Amino acid sequence: MDKITLEDKLSLIHEFWTPKIIAELNGQYVKIAEAKGEMVWHSHQNEDELFLVIRGQLTIELRDTDITLNEGEIFVVPRGVEHRPVAPEEVHMMLLEPKETKHTGDVKSSLTVEELEWI
Amino acid sequence: MDKITLEDKLSLIHEFWTPKIIAELNGQYVKIAEAKGEMVWHSHQNEDELFLVIRGQLTIELRDTDITLNEGEIFVVPRGVEHRPVAPEEVHMMLLEPKETKHTGDVKSSLTVEELEWI
Repeated sequence: MDKITLEDKLSLIHEFWTPKIIAELNGQYVKIAEAKGEMVWHSHQNEDELFLVIRGQLTIELRDTDITLNEGEIFVVPRGVEHRPVAPEEVHMMLLEPKETKHTGDVKSSLTVEELEWI
Repeated sequence: MDKITLEDKLSLIHEFWTPKIIAELNGQYVKIAEAKGEMVWHSHQNEDELFLVIRGQLTIELRDTDITLNEGEIFVVPRGVEHRPVAPEEVHMMLLEPKETKHTGDVKSSLTVEELEWI
């Protein structure tokens, strides 16, 4: 029953592409992440995934187009849609997705984190 | 499959305490609202409700404490918990809750909006 300050939580993150859980509601996790560089292509078969950019710029590559998000911009990747987040410079973001969502879907890569942690 | 710019969507709102839907994912609606003054006391029996302040300050009064949120701060009101949002000055916020969540729970007031609109 405490409030969550995004900047305070972000200051605790020291790895790129490793989301941390900050809240839970209605079977969903709210996560934050810092990123720079390229994620792997993946999809989530049964889960929609929301990205909100808090600072910086994030491009979500889709197979047929790219979506570039700046601070205060949101994109929802629909379930089943292949995507690859890319950030040329460091970006801070908030994510929302079901608790059962796997980090990189069914793709295993060196970036994959099996069990995300609360922060 | 378009991105959503929070500031653009907020600029389309001209009423206080009347959330508008901006996105849908996993059975949840993402909403934005502008507010000033006092909401009514209410609760949502089966739904947790997330508040994220985008600009300004929002106090969420609970029966035993108050939670004051500034820009970039989040609070999740657990299901069943009575709450009353209050904003002495204009505040802009993002909300997340299940699609079936009623605006003022089972309470009817002059502020109640039966069918929230997409924006």
